Amino acid sequence: MPCQSNEELNKLVLEAKKHTKYGEVADYIPALKKANRDDLSVAIYHHDGKCYSAGDIQQKITLQSISKVLTLALALMDSGEECVFKKVGYEPTGDPFNSMIKLETSRSAKPLNPMINAGALAVTHLIKGNSVGERLERILTFIRELAGHQAITYCEEVAKSEFDTAYLNRSLCYYMMQDGIIDEDVEELLELYTKQCAIEMDCLDLSRIGLVFALDGMDPVRKKQLIPADVARLCKTFMVTCGMYNASGEFAVRVGIPAKSGVSGGIMGSIRNRYGIGIFGPALDERGNSIGGLKLLEMMSKQYELSIF
Amino acid sequence: MPCQSNEELNKLVLEAKKHTKYGEVADYIPALKKANRDDLSVAIYHHDGKCYSAGDIQQKITLQSISKVLTLALALMDSGEECVFKKVGYEPTGDPFNSMIKLETSRSAKPLNPMINAGALAVTHLIKGNSVGERLERILTFIRELAGHQAITYCEEVAKSEFDTAYLNRSLCYYMMQDGIIDEDVEELLELYTKQCAIEMDCLDLSRIGLVFALDGMDPVRKKQLIPADVARLCKTFMVTCGMYNASGEFAVRVGIPAKSGVSGGIMGSIRNRYGIGIFGPALDERGNSIGGLKLLEMMSKQYELSIF
Amino acid sequence: MPCQSNEELNKLVLEAKKHTKYGEVADYIPALKKANRDDLSVAIYHHDGKCYSAGDIQQKITLQSISKVLTLALALMDSGEECVFKKVGYEPTGDPFNSMIKLETSRSAKPLNPMINAGALAVTHLIKGNSVGERLERILTFIRELAGHQAITYCEEVAKSEFDTAYLNRSLCYYMMQDGIIDEDVEELLELYTKQCAIEMDCLDLSRIGLVFALDGMDPVRKKQLIPADVARLCKTFMVTCGMYNASGEFAVRVGIPAKSGVSGGIMGSIRNRYGIGIFGPALDERGNSIGGLKLLEMMSKQYELSIF
Amino acid sequence: MPCQSNEELNKLVLEAKKHTKYGEVADYIPALKKANRDDLSVAIYHHDGKCYSAGDIQQKITLQSISKVLTLALALMDSGEECVFKKVGYEPTGDPFNSMIKLETSRSAKPLNPMINAGALAVTHLIKGNSVGERLERILTFIRELAGHQAITYCEEVAKSEFDTAYLNRSLCYYMMQDGIIDEDVEELLELYTKQCAIEMDCLDLSRIGLVFALDGMDPVRKKQLIPADVARLCKTFMVTCGMYNASGEFAVRVGIPAKSGVSGGIMGSIRNRYGIGIFGPALDERGNSIGGLKLLEMMSKQYELSIF
Repeated sequence: MPCQSNEELNKLVLEAKKHTKYGEVADYIPALKKANRDDLSVAIYHHDGKCYSAGDIQQKITLQSISKVLTLALALMDSGEECVFKKVGYEPTGDPFNSMIKLETSRSAKPLNPMINAGALAVTHLIKGNSVGERLERILTFIRELAGHQAITYCEEVAKSEFDTAYLNRSLCYYMMQDGIIDEDVEELLELYTKQCAIEMDCLDLSRIGLVFALDGMDPVRKKQLIPADVARLCKTFMVTCGMYNASGEFAVRVGIPAKSGVSGGIMGSIRNRYGIGIFGPALDERGNSIGGLKLLEMMSKQYELSIF
Repeated sequence: MPCQSNEELNKLVLEAKKHTKYGEVADYIPALKKANRDDLSVAIYHHDGKCYSAGDIQQKITLQSISKVLTLALALMDSGEECVFKKVGYEPTGDPFNSMIKLETSRSAKPLNPMINAGALAVTHLIKGNSVGERLERILTFIRELAGHQAITYCEEVAKSEFDTAYLNRSLCYYMMQDGIIDEDVEELLELYTKQCAIEMDCLDLSRIGLVFALDGMDPVRKKQLIPADVARLCKTFMVTCGMYNASGEFAVRVGIPAKSGVSGGIMGSIRNRYGIGIFGPALDERGNSIGGLKLLEMMSKQYELSIF
Repeated sequence: MPCQSNEELNKLVLEAKKHTKYGEVADYIPALKKANRDDLSVAIYHHDGKCYSAGDIQQKITLQSISKVLTLALALMDSGEECVFKKVGYEPTGDPFNSMIKLETSRSAKPLNPMINAGALAVTHLIKGNSVGERLERILTFIRELAGHQAITYCEEVAKSEFDTAYLNRSLCYYMMQDGIIDEDVEELLELYTKQCAIEMDCLDLSRIGLVFALDGMDPVRKKQLIPADVARLCKTFMVTCGMYNASGEFAVRVGIPAKSGVSGGIMGSIRNRYGIGIFGPALDERGNSIGGLKLLEMMSKQYELSIF
Repeated sequence: MPCQSNEELNKLVLEAKKHTKYGEVADYIPALKKANRDDLSVAIYHHDGKCYSAGDIQQKITLQSISKVLTLALALMDSGEECVFKKVGYEPTGDPFNSMIKLETSRSAKPLNPMINAGALAVTHLIKGNSVGERLERILTFIRELAGHQAITYCEEVAKSEFDTAYLNRSLCYYMMQDGIIDEDVEELLELYTKQCAIEMDCLDLSRIGLVFALDGMDPVRKKQLIPADVARLCKTFMVTCGMYNASGEFAVRVGIPAKSGVSGGIMGSIRNRYGIGIFGPALDERGNSIGGLKLLEMMSKQYELSIF
């Protein structure tokens, strides 16, 4: 059984840290640029409540693309699978996360999957509520429940920064409006989306949410089903096939667990029936994944035989 | 020498009209949908002031893509060739006018040429002035001069309609903002662009502007150089290589004259040192060109040996 | 525990058969065209040696794309992971199996993954041997071992038919030669590849090979490690991310097991530590997968909780 | 009237030569690599028989892509416009000459135009004759007539070199076979095509062929119509819209004459009713055009007002 001590984890983290120097901190918004390239921390939350960690796990990070999994779960709970997959497809793509090319060259105008930006925007579009404020509150309430942490909120500064420079996401939205995938005010959708991406938590929160997915939607503490099992499993499927941008295929081979990364350097992972993982390592590789986080997960997967394949 | 009588022109128009039934009137905005599919009219404005015409040449049409040539001329006069071609390229493309694919797959993010929507938006972005109003006024003043017709203005209804549904153009703009091609408020740029596209005139106006280009920028009546010769000739080059959307190559083979079409069904043509042509035929083929207009120009080109090749 | 009787399987097959009428038999080679659209058969091979089946499981089918998994295993055993992944990538793609577009628009010229045609050709290129005959013999020997069936060979008629019309595969090969991915005689490579695709077996054989993968490479009868565990698991990873052409993502959501399909209508599946599945149902959906086979696997996955997610 | 003396031409060539240092000699076949980067020569052949030249105009060069115009003329004479344009389109493309992407993403599988490799292969496919030898002889006879030079033949060494490494062209051929654009033995077609590309002549020959096109197909010396006028003009149209690879649009703006370049560094140009131009300058820019040749033509176009626009 893995990770029975913080010391063990610490050793792995020290080893993985050697790779952070080959990565770069995301620099497209000031708030992310401030991160320390050499940071690497991890929290592991076991189904029995035990937690192990290494590094500074109280540092707050914004969810960024990790939020795509969570809004996908909420949209599926709101509207059902049929409705959601009228808007987005199921297929992984070798294209980068912000690519438009498939929207134009595919027969269907649907974004290929809910983990690329276009698909995630189409999913957030489906989140119910009478206003941006109400929809954001629903997302926050859902995430607070998942993490068992009522203080979670979003970072105004990061949200604003991303909103102001979200040219490519605006471009994707208007492209999808043309095809009827989206039919709400784009600025409102982007406000909601950038706030969702700017939701802040620490590694421990992240690991606990990872555990909820690992338990097919059940809260490990209150033993309450927070997400229907089929929805939780569907989300994990996308984490495996598309969770690591256009490095998902290689990650499946090298690590083989459901996981989702964000450009903040966070990674959330789920080991079925066993534990959730929260990682923060802001040095990114050229495809946008935490370089130290990938290395750490690769070592953990080998040492503890985590691959589902 | 061609077209020495209205009767001659009338015969050609009657022949060309047989093809209008294979086309469709543009239906994406209500104002265009109202056009009568079987209309076909033409005005020919000779350098010596003589005019010949056939059909109802007083019907007003909006310029739509024809305006791309005119703002290109103004932008070149405003900022010079070097500045303009930092924003757009010179190359024709086999892609449809509203395609994004080249923006993503080309090494350069510049729109391929100023006649596709992306390129035309980048050109309109360069039109100088302190406000949308002032920039529009400058475009209008320029066009009134070219046509020798002070009453020319834009159609508020068409502009509004196009502005409201310009999702794809918004998408293109934001895509270009990401790459620094455009750096102004997108809604303002689109307001200016859709008003520019909605500028209204009749076939006679169109033929007179065509004549100004035919005379390398000189006003045929006042003998005044309205556009520098090199700018006028550069514009005609793009009319030849990219003036008929992704049918420009075939048009060069079949007709072989500088011409620019718009989805309203208008076509403006220039026969060097001789005359300008204005055509209105709202039935469009599947690539967005006036089906009757193309046929008419093809017959005229053969009969009067107009091809520059 | 699933499938404790042939009756149970029969019921599922009868249900799934209702969908075969919506599919079409592959018609690009005469041999495949002869198949009976309404056929659907399945064999399940348990790790303890028990077999269950429904339908005519002695009908012979050619492996077609299923062979891609087997040559991938052999190439990895021949040359190691590093060498193989210099030639092909790890990433799934939303493009069809015979697409070239990614070869041109990706920064790297490597085929995206070993399950698309380009990638599979690059993998077969790596199979060692001094001649086509010797390399084919090695593939056959390997597959006979996996199936525990010495009589397995390839169908000359199908191989010839496919070789003669393999224009697109020739095109892919020469494209890759340009980039140095492939550097052998293309006709020889295609001879080998089409013969590999034409290897014939029945559903029982297929299910036994599926079981070898399910047991991480171990022969269930002789208890011999036929494929190193890490190679077997790597192959299963690709079966999950790319095994069902550009329907792999949807299959992961709906079924969630490692499986590989072929245009003959065959599907090979692996349920870890438990059993292998061999299916034959020649009616294909528009993405090239057995329509009855997909339905059957979807029902089995739900009823017996097979999904790995 | 231009170029009344060799001295005048010499001055322009000296000026243009300053740019050759920014280019590179084609290096993909040994024979081309041997060229001297700083060479630049030009011959001008007037309709009245006068010739002016600068540089070593007796150096032999292979036609390479320049041959595309000549086989297009012959194919049109062989089979007529309708037949030819069932195989290739009319449209320029911003893609590089060897691109495949449009073959896959266009609705039609036809190569976009006869000046890109795919299109030129489809055109050569149409050249009539009972064998490669006979078809080549027909091409040679045609070209000898055009140049008025019976000694013209092809360079065996260059042809062989290009044939051996024509991977991308093989790839294009097989892709087109799949779609029925081509239906002959690919190796035979490539033999014919590479020999056609390897036809050798000097700048004077080139300028005389350019003059035949300038005179709408008439031989300037024997006053014989070698190419029907409509075919000659159609060819010139493609020289304008697609003659300079994906720099054709910029060339139209900067020079504005029908011209076709080849990777050997040759350019053939046609000034209507006046003269033909043959240029040899092996230093190429990154789009494959003679860098010194482009500069020279740009200066000539300005000084002698050659642009057709």
